[in-house]
Amino acid sequence: MRTQVVIIGGGPSGLLLSQILHLAGVENVVLERRSQDYVLGRIRAGVLEWGTVEMLRAAGVGARMDREGFVHEGTFLAARNAQFRVDFVQRAGKPVMVYGQTEVTRDLYHARAAAGGLVVHEAEAVTPHGLESEHPWVTYVKAGTEERIDCDYVIGCDGFHGVSRGCIPRTVLRETERVYPFGWLGVLSETPPVSHELIYANHSRGFALCSMRNAHLSRYYLQVPVGDHVENWSDDAFWDELRRRIPHEAAETLVTGPSIEKSIAPLRSYVAEPMRWGRLFLCGDAAHIVPPTGAKGLNLAMSDVHYLSEALIAHYRDNEPGGLDTYSERALARVWKATRFSWWMTTTLHRFEDQGAFGQRIQEAEIDYLAGSPAAQAVMAENYVGLPF
Amino acid sequence: MRTQVVIIGGGPSGLLLSQILHLAGVENVVLERRSQDYVLGRIRAGVLEWGTVEMLRAAGVGARMDREGFVHEGTFLAARNAQFRVDFVQRAGKPVMVYGQTEVTRDLYHARAAAGGLVVHEAEAVTPHGLESEHPWVTYVKAGTEERIDCDYVIGCDGFHGVSRGCIPRTVLRETERVYPFGWLGVLSETPPVSHELIYANHSRGFALCSMRNAHLSRYYLQVPVGDHVENWSDDAFWDELRRRIPHEAAETLVTGPSIEKSIAPLRSYVAEPMRWGRLFLCGDAAHIVPPTGAKGLNLAMSDVHYLSEALIAHYRDNEPGGLDTYSERALARVWKATRFSWWMTTTLHRFEDQGAFGQRIQEAEIDYLAGSPAAQAVMAENYVGLPF
Repeated sequence: MRTQVVIIGGGPSGLLLSQILHLAGVENVVLERRSQDYVLGRIRAGVLEWGTVEMLRAAGVGARMDREGFVHEGTFLAARNAQFRVDFVQRAGKPVMVYGQTEVTRDLYHARAAAGGLVVHEAEAVTPHGLESEHPWVTYVKAGTEERIDCDYVIGCDGFHGVSRGCIPRTVLRETERVYPFGWLGVLSETPPVSHELIYANHSRGFALCSMRNAHLSRYYLQVPVGDHVENWSDDAFWDELRRRIPHEAAETLVTGPSIEKSIAPLRSYVAEPMRWGRLFLCGDAAHIVPPTGAKGLNLAMSDVHYLSEALIAHYRDNEPGGLDTYSERALARVWKATRFSWWMTTTLHRFEDQGAFGQRIQEAEIDYLAGSPAAQAVMAENYVGLPF
Repeated sequence: MRTQVVIIGGGPSGLLLSQILHLAGVENVVLERRSQDYVLGRIRAGVLEWGTVEMLRAAGVGARMDREGFVHEGTFLAARNAQFRVDFVQRAGKPVMVYGQTEVTRDLYHARAAAGGLVVHEAEAVTPHGLESEHPWVTYVKAGTEERIDCDYVIGCDGFHGVSRGCIPRTVLRETERVYPFGWLGVLSETPPVSHELIYANHSRGFALCSMRNAHLSRYYLQVPVGDHVENWSDDAFWDELRRRIPHEAAETLVTGPSIEKSIAPLRSYVAEPMRWGRLFLCGDAAHIVPPTGAKGLNLAMSDVHYLSEALIAHYRDNEPGGLDTYSERALARVWKATRFSWWMTTTLHRFEDQGAFGQRIQEAEIDYLAGSPAAQAVMAENYVGLPF
């Protein structure tokens, strides 16, 4: 079998790239290691930058998002149990959209299926070959049989643990990493969200976040030490601790209920460079991980898809190869800016064991300054809604 | 002897407070431990916020500053030997004034002398008494004789090593501190400055700053490790290292010459709270120290003088004591914002031993972001020219 572009990974970035290339007449095949049900069962966050919203609309998969998503024109920040609001539209001219990553993926599956796109699920032992040649190919095993697809380019949309990044020789790959000394304990609960917009709370006991999926489904997070376990947190203990850390006015109106999901996620910043090697291009988590603070993970993957789809379409339709040559540099410039922003939100809002009294006061001064400075709010807002591509 | 306000310390903040109170008809005496020649011999930096400039003008001591000072409408920032400019006037509506702290002090001495103000030099063993009573007094020894001044209020403008802060009981005083693991090696040289505006340079070898006193007198700084000594740095070694760290275009045009002063200064952030205890009020370095990055030290002392002079005048002239009661809170709100800014400039521009590759890349991303974002430049500019009182 032969196609123009093989996309490894059927998550949102792989599927959106597939859809955009299809609309531009570029042939492609998506290979996904898991089943569709498995992919759609993964719980992920869902704050979409406005650039991501516009990409999804342009790719013809925005209708349900526009119907069911929630436009958030701002967010709340808090320190010492007192909150203020940053108005994204006022400060940066754009809102964000709250719409779950799982729903984005579902819409993309429907669109690919409706267009007759080829998405191979349960493709095992996916392996790229000949990436330094002009004629690469990808092998995989499906239902016990090895298959081969010849192609022009291989795209790694297969996440942090995928096979793609490992194809780049260690002498070429530069990895930069920061592991944060805490995790996020998340609870999903069938209760009305405590606030119509998110609340990011700095507290001397640790960070807390009030988020949501919809009007009846709340998502709350607490900073917990590395090595903590879900079993250490009863629902009551979780709600009690959440009340201590969030603004007083939110604590008073918080509606609690049984958790329907409870888990701890680690926090890390990671960037692999370059994002191109020979005929292999990396996209999203395959090349970079951000901590969840500021909700940049999915959006950064979408930004890679933007640059890469533009470059591939210019190559195939207009015979302009320049975009492919500069993809890594262009994508990484934005990756580092979002990495900086996620790092800033994480370090400003979380409690660090070694920060001492000075560190805590600097965080509070930063948040006080943000509360009173339109310029500082513009910086936070323009990063939160997404820097221009 | 009796007066209304005794000011301990005859540096710029004590003298300016004395001058402003005098103009409003509030009697005061300044006690200074050193001789006038000694005070005027101290080498200090001299970037004045616009609010400081306006205070000096309003106090009638702005004429020579306006004649001889240099208005800087922007500054250069650099990373990886490449620079860009932040335009203060465009981004924050105000410039800064380059005019040495020594010159400010000299102008204030002239003004106090012309008005017949009492500034006692070489006042030894200055000691406040009765600060918790309604009738405090200050004793000191002058030429071997102990003197006593009765007063309503005692103001500590006597710097970090002065006697005033120590009068606040340790059970009341909250001290917050960060000592940075490096110093600034400074060189004064009778050469034309390499740039008409300052250059703040981040470099993987360490921070560098190109500053100036006037068109014929340059001031340059290099980050050096804690424990380094001036004797380790020949002039040639200094110039060679400076050239490595500053933007290529500056390195190529740098004019070098013999150093006429060379010294190493440590960097520290320190805040003491509260800034009032009984009838004692602290001002400037007596209550807080910032690292020199961003030139906030003198300006922060002047901001304390602003709040305190306003409060004292309201008390004496209008019988409104509220300003004295809220002085500590109002002054500290601005102190913490300036402490945050100085900390941010210091941590963004300096090399830290433990920052690793991730820290270096985050610094470069921060500077890249600043280079391209008007909002980020507005944040830097509004802090550099001085947040509103």
